[in-house]
Amino acid sequence: MRNANAITALVAGGAGFIGSHLIDALLAEGATVVSLDSYLTGRPENLRHLDHEARFDSVHADIVEALPARISRTRFSHVFNLACAASPPHYQADPEHTMLTNVLGTRNLLRLAEETGARFLLTSTSEVYGDPEQHPQREAYRGWVSCTGPRACYDEGKRAAETLTFDYQRAGRADVRVARIFNTYGPRMRPDDGRVVSNVICQALSGEDVTVYGDGSQTRSFCYVSDLVEGLMRLMASDADDGPVNLGNPNELTVADLVERVMRMTGSRSRVVHRPLPVDDPRRRKPDIGRAKARLGWEPVVPLQRGLEETAAWFADEQARSAPPERPAGRPALVEVAAE
Amino acid sequence: MRNANAITALVAGGAGFIGSHLIDALLAEGATVVSLDSYLTGRPENLRHLDHEARFDSVHADIVEALPARISRTRFSHVFNLACAASPPHYQADPEHTMLTNVLGTRNLLRLAEETGARFLLTSTSEVYGDPEQHPQREAYRGWVSCTGPRACYDEGKRAAETLTFDYQRAGRADVRVARIFNTYGPRMRPDDGRVVSNVICQALSGEDVTVYGDGSQTRSFCYVSDLVEGLMRLMASDADDGPVNLGNPNELTVADLVERVMRMTGSRSRVVHRPLPVDDPRRRKPDIGRAKARLGWEPVVPLQRGLEETAAWFADEQARSAPPERPAGRPALVEVAAE
Repeated sequence: MRNANAITALVAGGAGFIGSHLIDALLAEGATVVSLDSYLTGRPENLRHLDHEARFDSVHADIVEALPARISRTRFSHVFNLACAASPPHYQADPEHTMLTNVLGTRNLLRLAEETGARFLLTSTSEVYGDPEQHPQREAYRGWVSCTGPRACYDEGKRAAETLTFDYQRAGRADVRVARIFNTYGPRMRPDDGRVVSNVICQALSGEDVTVYGDGSQTRSFCYVSDLVEGLMRLMASDADDGPVNLGNPNELTVADLVERVMRMTGSRSRVVHRPLPVDDPRRRKPDIGRAKARLGWEPVVPLQRGLEETAAWFADEQARSAPPERPAGRPALVEVAAE
Repeated sequence: MRNANAITALVAGGAGFIGSHLIDALLAEGATVVSLDSYLTGRPENLRHLDHEARFDSVHADIVEALPARISRTRFSHVFNLACAASPPHYQADPEHTMLTNVLGTRNLLRLAEETGARFLLTSTSEVYGDPEQHPQREAYRGWVSCTGPRACYDEGKRAAETLTFDYQRAGRADVRVARIFNTYGPRMRPDDGRVVSNVICQALSGEDVTVYGDGSQTRSFCYVSDLVEGLMRLMASDADDGPVNLGNPNELTVADLVERVMRMTGSRSRVVHRPLPVDDPRRRKPDIGRAKARLGWEPVVPLQRGLEETAAWFADEQARSAPPERPAGRPALVEVAAE
């Protein structure tokens, strides 16, 4: 992906949190980029800063349907599939559509890659490991996923998308890369995303009760979005076509630790309240990134503190922008303090 | 399903090995039955004996496509989904179609069940357990499936089909039952099926080398088809809508044992030759049928010896029917001896 001026990339899910950052990175390297998004969870405002960018275009369509001519007639060199609701409340709202997005949508994009000779990258997920019994998770671990539970539409959908992708590879129909993305955070997450970083920051900033599911002892490993995007770019440019590659930050912390950090950083006076753990919520999740290090020379570089500060600052700006006029505009003071 | 004269059943995959026996059982109980089959692996001759049966009809269509009007306009009371190639050489021939049969095909039949108010039964598979690390396999075991390997199109396809089915259940869109079928054998298996019982019997009968993959120490548990069909009928009639139900025979034997039995029974002079184990071939597979016993009052009753004799006799008839005229017609003598 370096020296990318000859690159014409399709980013499905381009208006999403990670997709929009990936598009920024591709454009910064000289690529021509088309975003494809259904806007079911992606947001047009994530791409608004590109309205006058000559090398960028966006198409409104759902990959579950036949791809529009604007897409199927373009000779893409690279196809990135980031299209799927990724947070439980969103992907569970229409589980049938979530499954079809992963299976039929991935199939449609694989066919596009086959027809145009484009290299194809699937963003899979650490959710393919389910509630893992091996820790940290290596790519060879086959996972502990309930295929009948309420998270399965996403977890099994992504597993099936990996299957299709490697079946295209085995048949010589497409040149493929698969990333298994672990928890990622940063600006442009949806405030209603339901995931822990956005939940905690938004609640802390607004003074609402901060919700912790369970006792907070479950662990997560959070990767800042710029690190993740760098991993995706390197993976697409690499020769790692022989299996999935974990991309995530192996720095593990408990949800309780995260909450404490965010509370301190934002100077929030929110109360912390506990709610029951959702069904099949993973207790621990931490990537083994040995393969990404070896094959891509990649590892995360952004410290958690800096990433959280940038994210909190962005959410504070967002809250200010969407606040009713009587509230003071601009970034709340408590964040200015925190970002010192 | 008892006193079934008011039943109008759709059997997708009705021309297949198990599907055709299920149709016979449904008709015997007074039901009206429509078979839906793509004939990709199902065979018209499995249903030929029903050509003049007034309560039977068959439709040639692929469940991956929109269902034909003959199907979508019928008010079915019961929909059985048995449609998918089930042996590795067949389901691996077009892995994309295998995945779509399970995902899109199951979705199409679930929608039909939703529209007509029919009860829906998915035939899933012991393959959802992959190469299991728990033995025997209970329904709560989440499996050890490689989602990137060459068997995944089937294994992950069925897992995804279960997901869709229980998502319809959770949303109140359909009343569902899910069977996880373990190895099944009997008349009407395809000789080219590639599965161990049909392979060994056909090779032993014809005097060809009998192929054993690996050293033959891997175990299987074989259920005779009439037992399996009884289990499916009971499951459909039951209230077991709260999770999948294993259907299979817990009598475990090694592949080497099976080969020895068949050789003795058929008086075959074939040589036994060993070949390398295929990728991801399960080492052990044995159902825990506690749930089927408790919820359906079901367990297999046909002894292996009798089941193998009936199967060998059927294959011998088949070989005789398809033999060139210079070979003697009728059942080969070696089977007459074996069936004593």
